[in-house]
Amino acid sequence: MTIAEESLQFHYEKRGKIEVVSTVPVKNKHDLSLAYTPGVAEPCLEIQKDENKSYELTRRWNMCLVVTDGSAVLGLGDIGPVAGMPVMEGKCVLFKEFGGVDAFPLCIKSKDVDEIVNTIYLISGSFGGVNLEDISAPRCFEIEEKLKQKCDIPIFHDDQHGTAVINLAGLINALKVVGKNKEDVRIVISGAGAAAISITRLLLKYGFPDIILCDRTGAIYEGRTKGMNPVKEQMSKVTNPSKLQGTLADALKGSDIFIGVSSPGLVTTEMVRTMAKDAVLFACANPTPEIFPDDAKAGGAMVVATGRSDFPNQINNVLAFPGIFRGAFDVRASEINEEMKFAAAEALAGLVSDEELGPDYIIPAAFDPRVGKAVAKAVAEAARKTGVARIDA
Amino acid sequence: MTIAEESLQFHYEKRGKIEVVSTVPVKNKHDLSLAYTPGVAEPCLEIQKDENKSYELTRRWNMCLVVTDGSAVLGLGDIGPVAGMPVMEGKCVLFKEFGGVDAFPLCIKSKDVDEIVNTIYLISGSFGGVNLEDISAPRCFEIEEKLKQKCDIPIFHDDQHGTAVINLAGLINALKVVGKNKEDVRIVISGAGAAAISITRLLLKYGFPDIILCDRTGAIYEGRTKGMNPVKEQMSKVTNPSKLQGTLADALKGSDIFIGVSSPGLVTTEMVRTMAKDAVLFACANPTPEIFPDDAKAGGAMVVATGRSDFPNQINNVLAFPGIFRGAFDVRASEINEEMKFAAAEALAGLVSDEELGPDYIIPAAFDPRVGKAVAKAVAEAARKTGVARIDA
Repeated sequence: MTIAEESLQFHYEKRGKIEVVSTVPVKNKHDLSLAYTPGVAEPCLEIQKDENKSYELTRRWNMCLVVTDGSAVLGLGDIGPVAGMPVMEGKCVLFKEFGGVDAFPLCIKSKDVDEIVNTIYLISGSFGGVNLEDISAPRCFEIEEKLKQKCDIPIFHDDQHGTAVINLAGLINALKVVGKNKEDVRIVISGAGAAAISITRLLLKYGFPDIILCDRTGAIYEGRTKGMNPVKEQMSKVTNPSKLQGTLADALKGSDIFIGVSSPGLVTTEMVRTMAKDAVLFACANPTPEIFPDDAKAGGAMVVATGRSDFPNQINNVLAFPGIFRGAFDVRASEINEEMKFAAAEALAGLVSDEELGPDYIIPAAFDPRVGKAVAKAVAEAARKTGVARIDA
Repeated sequence: MTIAEESLQFHYEKRGKIEVVSTVPVKNKHDLSLAYTPGVAEPCLEIQKDENKSYELTRRWNMCLVVTDGSAVLGLGDIGPVAGMPVMEGKCVLFKEFGGVDAFPLCIKSKDVDEIVNTIYLISGSFGGVNLEDISAPRCFEIEEKLKQKCDIPIFHDDQHGTAVINLAGLINALKVVGKNKEDVRIVISGAGAAAISITRLLLKYGFPDIILCDRTGAIYEGRTKGMNPVKEQMSKVTNPSKLQGTLADALKGSDIFIGVSSPGLVTTEMVRTMAKDAVLFACANPTPEIFPDDAKAGGAMVVATGRSDFPNQINNVLAFPGIFRGAFDVRASEINEEMKFAAAEALAGLVSDEELGPDYIIPAAFDPRVGKAVAKAVAEAARKTGVARIDA
């Protein structure tokens, strides 16, 4: 039986991967009078006086909304909101398992940016944070930006920022392995979707000065006219300082690092051979990477990571989002800012000791039990330092 | 310590009365590949092909939305959406405890009917049904009606229909106790909010021909001009066949039954004395009823019910909504229609045996363990008979 068949059978058996349970007894009249009427009027009135009390008197302090419009589910594309629910439920399972976060899945029957924003805003008072999921680019950027303007709770598009955090964590350690500095390396990023843009932005802010973003048309440079959109336009102004034009193959020549969040098989052994010495490749297209590790190493690559669990160095979002929300919730952060993402990446990278560090171990394994807590601690600390923590942990 | 103080302390200790838990293991890579990527793509594709599969492959089959705008929370009035959350969480606890239904609470930051309707509609694909809660009249009527038009899942405003079902159940048995027929009795209903209107509508459809609805102005009759609104206008045409004008006291003279969902102390012993022999009074204002049982009995009443747990015959919604949704979910009903409400009321009434039946026992106790299942069974059966069941139980 294939994994697909086995998973389908598993889903038919389980009929849902989450459940809402009660944390209080209701076995007699007294129980009922405390948890419900008439006693419940009192916590309601407390919250009416001070809305912040909703974090102390209801589950809001630990409740994350996982929400999609179904427009970019996994690699399946726009399969519609209801069809995205198995992924959303799965995400909620991971939130609980790896971060102790209650997460509830919703699918929104709309593709309209403002309608999606308004829907999420109107229910945001029920949650401590919002995890946007599987929303197509470039709509995802606008939705996230508008929600951040309207809401006073963390808004986090995991396909963007979770992915960016893991890639940064991997890069921090990969640079140690190859003995290069972030100021000196040239990075080629393949893809122009949510993940590619977000990785580029985070790496720029972290201090990687030379990044070339490549889409199907080739390198994005200032002044390019073919296949552009407002986000690519914006990126063209802050990336590719050498104004390189040409194909992905052209961009890779002499480059130190390749990060692929694009399509299977885009990179060949021959292309890796043209890269700088001790090349690093994160080939994250799923399930088939831009290049398989053996093929990359045959071209001289020193460090190769993929999105797959059957090769070393798995770039897996589950390492980031549960701990990031745990940390943000622990200090009731009003947002998840860049410093909190840096802290998450550095904490992840730091879990690999100098002794363990090597070409085949640059990032902790998905089931490393230390991950969630280490990320949460670092994120909470960064929230405090940047003034977005609203309580002490 | 008062119940209010005790409940507040209880809420601070619990920090929320519900929790979202995982029903699947994620202890290793294989678990992850079934519950999440890559396996999860398969159930997504199944739902894309046939949206009904969402009831088999996700938790939708058992998931009820409990939603408010905070405009009529308990007797507290418009305290705002976030402040209503302790009640919504409590409701979810009762759904699970008494009906085995997963329920998730949301508060919507809007008072606009169309915005509320659209928000709930847009997320309705994530749920098997919607329980509207604590939304003020007359907005609640419009919201419910519009949602029923747009959605293909049950929409149920518990403050209306749950209350109506329990009152009908109590009446069925009260009539047996006093030996009268529904065709012969005159009922006076005090109140003009969601509950009063809904009780009136359900009793009319059940075959009580003579109902007089009274608001603060007095009896509502066709042609009245003072203090009317479109819903009262509509009710004036189908109630009060004798076109009685006057106060509540005037209406009660010679009437057989009083149902109060209005304000404390509206009815006096003296007024009860003017009612027909063996009067029945359901004085449901909470926590202080329209008249206390002893005062009603001093006026000659034979059966008295209240909303309180410290007197006999408690009219408590918890007897109805968990079983109603359980039954509707069991057959994947597309709506909760009048026949299903009648069935719920009759099932509830039927749990009181002829031997047990008496002035002080017309309705099962809130914690009677037979209630949820009996109501669910009757509701599912009625759904099948009326053609709104989409699967066999």
